[in-house]
Amino acid sequence: MNTGLFITLEGPEGAGKTTQTARLASWLGDLGLAVHTTREPGAGKIGAQIRQVLLNPENVGLNPLTEALLMAADRAQHVADELRPALLQGQMVICDRYIDSHIAYQGYGRGLSVAWLQDLNKTATDGLLPDLTLLLQLPVQVGLARTKKRGDADRMEQEQLAFHQRLHDGYAAIAAAEPRRVRVINAAADEDAVQEQIRAAVGDVLLRKGLVAQDALR
Amino acid sequence: MNTGLFITLEGPEGAGKTTQTARLASWLGDLGLAVHTTREPGAGKIGAQIRQVLLNPENVGLNPLTEALLMAADRAQHVADELRPALLQGQMVICDRYIDSHIAYQGYGRGLSVAWLQDLNKTATDGLLPDLTLLLQLPVQVGLARTKKRGDADRMEQEQLAFHQRLHDGYAAIAAAEPRRVRVINAAADEDAVQEQIRAAVGDVLLRKGLVAQDALR
Repeated sequence: MNTGLFITLEGPEGAGKTTQTARLASWLGDLGLAVHTTREPGAGKIGAQIRQVLLNPENVGLNPLTEALLMAADRAQHVADELRPALLQGQMVICDRYIDSHIAYQGYGRGLSVAWLQDLNKTATDGLLPDLTLLLQLPVQVGLARTKKRGDADRMEQEQLAFHQRLHDGYAAIAAAEPRRVRVINAAADEDAVQEQIRAAVGDVLLRKGLVAQDALR
Repeated sequence: MNTGLFITLEGPEGAGKTTQTARLASWLGDLGLAVHTTREPGAGKIGAQIRQVLLNPENVGLNPLTEALLMAADRAQHVADELRPALLQGQMVICDRYIDSHIAYQGYGRGLSVAWLQDLNKTATDGLLPDLTLLLQLPVQVGLARTKKRGDADRMEQEQLAFHQRLHDGYAAIAAAEPRRVRVINAAADEDAVQEQIRAAVGDVLLRKGLVAQDALR
């Protein structure tokens, strides 16, 4: 049995996942909780090697099925080596991207079967689902503009507007299908306001699980 | 529609697949056929990167599920980029290891679900099955002795006797389940005798498919 808490952050490039993950981790630490932050793809020594294959800009011919299977391979190793052990130790595990990004990008974005991706992930994760998923939602144009400003050029960010629209709709469909697990966060707000929404959502789960007292959240 | 012929060679380390593949290719070339030889894992630029992750001796912690998914990722790319196009061009494609090694090693050998691996491969290959599979069968002790002599030390070859016995039984089960596709070759015979068995099996298929005339095989 997991005694920890498993939180994932999902959403498009430019939604602020990295910044918000760091701030959430810092807040949970201040509450006296043991925190473990990680990300996908590419955690761990083996994951880093798989990530290189996925994000190498020279691999322009990487086909969607290969990409999906590499993501699942990375996740299987991550769950077994890092996520499960940390949760069993009672840690608050925060993961930047997990299953939902996989399904949004490879399924809704690139047109692979969503049902097949769900099955693939069920096997790859041995059924490990987050206690809470924070979907950082952003209007498509805002996300694209932020990404451009950042000047990133890796393969996934060279995609076009239509792809980003499908991605957005995919995330929204996932959130609608699993309202208990997925909380939609308005990531177009300023950084502090986004963090406030995140703390409210995480605080609810911490209370429900008895991981903090009501007083601690005031 | 494929106009070529798809032949795979399967079997344990030390069975002589590489040598026999080269000799088979040479014979088919002498018959005037266009031949394309390849192998798994690790064909192509992306496959080579995946192969590095699979065979890196430092990746001792690679879990069986991750390994199986990396194999499938490699195969998906190989089928799309190389196998299908070569078959559509009418070539005789000879591949050193394919689905059956995956199922024998990861399923029978490492205990993953054989049914799941079959489904995974059906998706990864988009249903591409060999016209003929040559299973180079070898008593377990003979295979292990040959492997040791060769002095190979990559991760997969550091496995133990019990594993090799399961592998042997797995290959045998596959051959028994698909007698039309899989021909068992006695690889304990000397090199020329093994090649003779292979040419007999391939010759049957070439005739059946009308790719050579009866006279050419005499």
